[in-house]
Amino acid sequence: MRYLTAGESHGEELLGIIEGLPSGLEINLSKINSMLATRQQVYGRGSRSSLCPDTAEIRSGVYGGKTTGAPIAVAIKNGSCGAGEFDFFRPGHVDYAAAVKYGYDSPWLGAERASARETAIRTALGSIALMLLGQLGITVNATGTQVGNAVDECNPLELSEDMKREIDVAGRSGDTLGGKIKVSISGLKAGFGSHVHFDRRLDGILAGALMAIPSVKAVEVGLGVDFACAKGSEVADILIYQNGKIVRKSNFGGGIEGGISNGESIAFTLTLKPIPSIAGLPTVDSGGNACLTGKVRGDVTAVPAACVVAQAAAALALCEVILDCLGGDTMEEIKDRYGKKG
Amino acid sequence: MRYLTAGESHGEELLGIIEGLPSGLEINLSKINSMLATRQQVYGRGSRSSLCPDTAEIRSGVYGGKTTGAPIAVAIKNGSCGAGEFDFFRPGHVDYAAAVKYGYDSPWLGAERASARETAIRTALGSIALMLLGQLGITVNATGTQVGNAVDECNPLELSEDMKREIDVAGRSGDTLGGKIKVSISGLKAGFGSHVHFDRRLDGILAGALMAIPSVKAVEVGLGVDFACAKGSEVADILIYQNGKIVRKSNFGGGIEGGISNGESIAFTLTLKPIPSIAGLPTVDSGGNACLTGKVRGDVTAVPAACVVAQAAAALALCEVILDCLGGDTMEEIKDRYGKKG
Amino acid sequence: MRYLTAGESHGEELLGIIEGLPSGLEINLSKINSMLATRQQVYGRGSRSSLCPDTAEIRSGVYGGKTTGAPIAVAIKNGSCGAGEFDFFRPGHVDYAAAVKYGYDSPWLGAERASARETAIRTALGSIALMLLGQLGITVNATGTQVGNAVDECNPLELSEDMKREIDVAGRSGDTLGGKIKVSISGLKAGFGSHVHFDRRLDGILAGALMAIPSVKAVEVGLGVDFACAKGSEVADILIYQNGKIVRKSNFGGGIEGGISNGESIAFTLTLKPIPSIAGLPTVDSGGNACLTGKVRGDVTAVPAACVVAQAAAALALCEVILDCLGGDTMEEIKDRYGKKG
Amino acid sequence: MRYLTAGESHGEELLGIIEGLPSGLEINLSKINSMLATRQQVYGRGSRSSLCPDTAEIRSGVYGGKTTGAPIAVAIKNGSCGAGEFDFFRPGHVDYAAAVKYGYDSPWLGAERASARETAIRTALGSIALMLLGQLGITVNATGTQVGNAVDECNPLELSEDMKREIDVAGRSGDTLGGKIKVSISGLKAGFGSHVHFDRRLDGILAGALMAIPSVKAVEVGLGVDFACAKGSEVADILIYQNGKIVRKSNFGGGIEGGISNGESIAFTLTLKPIPSIAGLPTVDSGGNACLTGKVRGDVTAVPAACVVAQAAAALALCEVILDCLGGDTMEEIKDRYGKKG
Repeated sequence: MRYLTAGESHGEELLGIIEGLPSGLEINLSKINSMLATRQQVYGRGSRSSLCPDTAEIRSGVYGGKTTGAPIAVAIKNGSCGAGEFDFFRPGHVDYAAAVKYGYDSPWLGAERASARETAIRTALGSIALMLLGQLGITVNATGTQVGNAVDECNPLELSEDMKREIDVAGRSGDTLGGKIKVSISGLKAGFGSHVHFDRRLDGILAGALMAIPSVKAVEVGLGVDFACAKGSEVADILIYQNGKIVRKSNFGGGIEGGISNGESIAFTLTLKPIPSIAGLPTVDSGGNACLTGKVRGDVTAVPAACVVAQAAAALALCEVILDCLGGDTMEEIKDRYGKKG
Repeated sequence: MRYLTAGESHGEELLGIIEGLPSGLEINLSKINSMLATRQQVYGRGSRSSLCPDTAEIRSGVYGGKTTGAPIAVAIKNGSCGAGEFDFFRPGHVDYAAAVKYGYDSPWLGAERASARETAIRTALGSIALMLLGQLGITVNATGTQVGNAVDECNPLELSEDMKREIDVAGRSGDTLGGKIKVSISGLKAGFGSHVHFDRRLDGILAGALMAIPSVKAVEVGLGVDFACAKGSEVADILIYQNGKIVRKSNFGGGIEGGISNGESIAFTLTLKPIPSIAGLPTVDSGGNACLTGKVRGDVTAVPAACVVAQAAAALALCEVILDCLGGDTMEEIKDRYGKKG
Repeated sequence: MRYLTAGESHGEELLGIIEGLPSGLEINLSKINSMLATRQQVYGRGSRSSLCPDTAEIRSGVYGGKTTGAPIAVAIKNGSCGAGEFDFFRPGHVDYAAAVKYGYDSPWLGAERASARETAIRTALGSIALMLLGQLGITVNATGTQVGNAVDECNPLELSEDMKREIDVAGRSGDTLGGKIKVSISGLKAGFGSHVHFDRRLDGILAGALMAIPSVKAVEVGLGVDFACAKGSEVADILIYQNGKIVRKSNFGGGIEGGISNGESIAFTLTLKPIPSIAGLPTVDSGGNACLTGKVRGDVTAVPAACVVAQAAAALALCEVILDCLGGDTMEEIKDRYGKKG
Repeated sequence: MRYLTAGESHGEELLGIIEGLPSGLEINLSKINSMLATRQQVYGRGSRSSLCPDTAEIRSGVYGGKTTGAPIAVAIKNGSCGAGEFDFFRPGHVDYAAAVKYGYDSPWLGAERASARETAIRTALGSIALMLLGQLGITVNATGTQVGNAVDECNPLELSEDMKREIDVAGRSGDTLGGKIKVSISGLKAGFGSHVHFDRRLDGILAGALMAIPSVKAVEVGLGVDFACAKGSEVADILIYQNGKIVRKSNFGGGIEGGISNGESIAFTLTLKPIPSIAGLPTVDSGGNACLTGKVRGDVTAVPAACVVAQAAAALALCEVILDCLGGDTMEEIKDRYGKKG
């Protein structure tokens, strides 16, 4: 399984091609669109997302509602949301680094592709991955657990009152907030990923995929940073034999040992930086002159929307690992093979 | 650039093949061995490492002290350090998951390859990557910043007294400790990695490589988890034009924006879990019977040794990104091309 | 550089995403369309191609007529050319093997993706690769050299009278013809591809790409099959020093030695089988009952159209090899680096 | 599955690491050595091969005679066969192109890695692939079918008298010969490879691997070049339903349709150029001065030895395709999954 995405923030459309999926996977377009809607309708988003509701179009690879095994092309048309041009390098954005790398005259050209807008198509592809995982009884979820100083656990469409208040306060002062997201994978059997080569370790693969989400600046597995102060004897996930199978008394490790899933739930925590789009910050323009940033985009925090993206990214990465392990030309084969695992 | 490693903890030797390096890179074998020695001689390691000093042998790809462009094979012979067999599943190790995956009868067979012993050969390959980076003026460093409750910053061979005391206390009680490591990359110009496709983002690539180090459970870039509570206006890395070039007033972001190096130092923080090898933990044996873990290996904390491994892993991952961007058949070409960057 | 294509023969559109091209490459849409037109307007094609003229649309990755470094999405809309359903397994087509592999009930479902229709989008992407190569002074050409028993060398739009006669005769009898194509690469400097690892050999890479074109059944380099009877002394490409550089007195080897371009023209010869779409052949239907094939598609020979596809496929494969060697974020860098080669 | 090889012709040893094989595959070292011996003991080889009998050593990845799933390292020590230095560019060898690419001062340095010596380790890895395929009932064979003007079909150790005579005559005159090899794969079920993306087509993959064998200059599938003159109606592989399954009345296509195995035997034909190592050819030396080639190596024809290499290369490429399709952590799983195919 492999995939590529294309498309700019203010281009005609976003496109994704995913290749290597089996035939016979039922594709539910309304599930994709519902996931896209969740990504857009969360609290604290600026005006753009409300104006241009995302709708996925399947352009190939599906016949009679099921995949054929051929590459699946998915598109999301961009609405007419006005131009994205600006002439200053925004701190925390790709603007400067992209201009250096690609020789852009204009600070905004890199932003067209670096924009979180790209995550819409990744979400659509991730939604397909979730459907495949769902057929195996595997679910991937992501919930917001912190927005600014408000700590809670809530799904992206139902932020706690504390979180909303944080967002409102920051938004009124023209500021932005970071936060945390918990990504959980349930129903994954033991034996996925591998210790035999470092680049096949499930923790490394998932961490790489999750860190590649815009604004994510930390990725933790299980106890994560809290392992630093713990004693080994306090955080051992003791094995016991219970009702005919081996289980754990705890899951500090987050479901991965030696780079392989151990049958417990997988648990990742992501930290997001505050969205760096803030007006009035001192910076330089494309001519190297000091200036202030203007307002480019209006979200206060990426946490709720990034929950959806993290769910998608984790699903895609996991799906790839599972298909490497199971192979399979048809969904039926894959289900049969997964059923015999563990 | 690509590489594979092979070899078991108690096998004949560890082997690595690295392919895709340019010709004309000077290989300093004593630098490799000195890095291997650092990995072994750190405080808090058990008896094995002192008995079997690691020495790298270059078996191909180098002529007259310089690379030829052909694959470089590196080997490290294993000393005769006794067998590694045991019959219980150790919590926090690959034992159980590997047995399920590969159908092993014996809990110890997975450990042969999952053992941190493999990181010796990754260190040797990483040392070669460091030599290439060094030719471009890029350095990669890793220092211990926390062991248990002792917080300090020190290189792996010179732990602070506090850290040593933590290790001694834990060791005497048969317990183990986690901690933190800071990985820094200096001298890297702006423009490496890319925002144009998620899997080319430098932060994702480095995070994936670092999370794939045994015992690493969290990877942070820049401020990392501390971004969660920060306001956007507080953590913006303001751009200014100074002495003819654009620089930053701060580096909260850790040197990467939009997945591309921005010319500032790259800063990652890793959290390690306590080494899970503890005697006397309740567990089950290969027959599913309750038992206690025996003592398998003697280190108290992985922090100092993992500094060396993290330095190697980061160097390898970065080297791959740089060679993707620069191409190059000869070291001379690569230096010339890097010189023109930025 | 990497790319994926998607789309079915009778689907909405064909799509391709190419990722990893530099910024600053001028994209000439009319050149793409002209190449698509050549692929369609050749002698001996059936009715479909004339009804639905292919037009490429660039949907991302290009701004102001130049690439930005972001993934380029290209689409070709399918005209309404009627359905492609049939219920018999055609010899020489993917029908049976695809049905077994993907569990299709219908013999025509595999054909939707295996159809030479897919080569239209590969041609569009190849046209972009040709533009990049053109900037380096490298040209890739493909000419028909045999159709049935008519042997000549002619470009795909100007078949010789003998060839046309062969096509007319075969067409009238409802039969089809194979033939040969010569693929030539000029202007490529010495040093591309590598002997150091088998999968980096330029001959293997090009042969793999060219054999993956529908109907191609043989790939030869230089003298190809005629090497079998030759003596070593007769086919040595003698080196001489002339006007300050080393050149050859002959080019039996086809421009590649040890898997590396040697500065001479690259020469491949492809053999195509007759198009297997013939009506009235005995076969079986999806129920396993004996039946006869019906008419599905109307071309007599693939030779002229496949010239265009071979040109595209060779250009894409070569472009990938060159970018691996040169790296490069901008077209300017790539030109500078290529200029210093050899 | 992936693998890397390393080692020079006159270096210490050849090394290969193969990663991604399942656990539980029985490794028969004497089969590897017997394949290595066949590669060496064929008719028409020079003195080197007789002096240094190749013996494989398994250095990792195997326990108790079976694979563990960990990377398998294989080594073949080089005997002391004298130096390989020379100072002239040999036509038909990598010497000139490698010197240009890697900046070598010496014409012989490229030859150290480009030498057919490397195929010994590829043979050893291929032998392991053959064992895996053998467990699935798949065999890969290669026989010489032409040496110079002598046409026959014989296994590499039992050349026909005509072939030997050709070799003797050429050898006495200091000349060399090319020839042809037939590679056959039996027992492969329908459904391997895929039409859905060009780079997954089995014919392209095998052709790429076979063309990457030193001296191979043409690769044909099925009728190959003879398709050029054939009519479609003459070469259709008619499907019939017989004894409960669909079979073919002929196999002109060589067992692959639309890039997928169709259940018939796979048949490839390779053409090898004469070994280009001939003394007394005019050429230039490293200073650009005209000179004559000296004698570097003594084989008259590569055909018999290349049979073994082709068998190995085809087995490795096929094994990779099969494992992509079947996945599988253990040999037992793979056998079960293959059994359910078709």
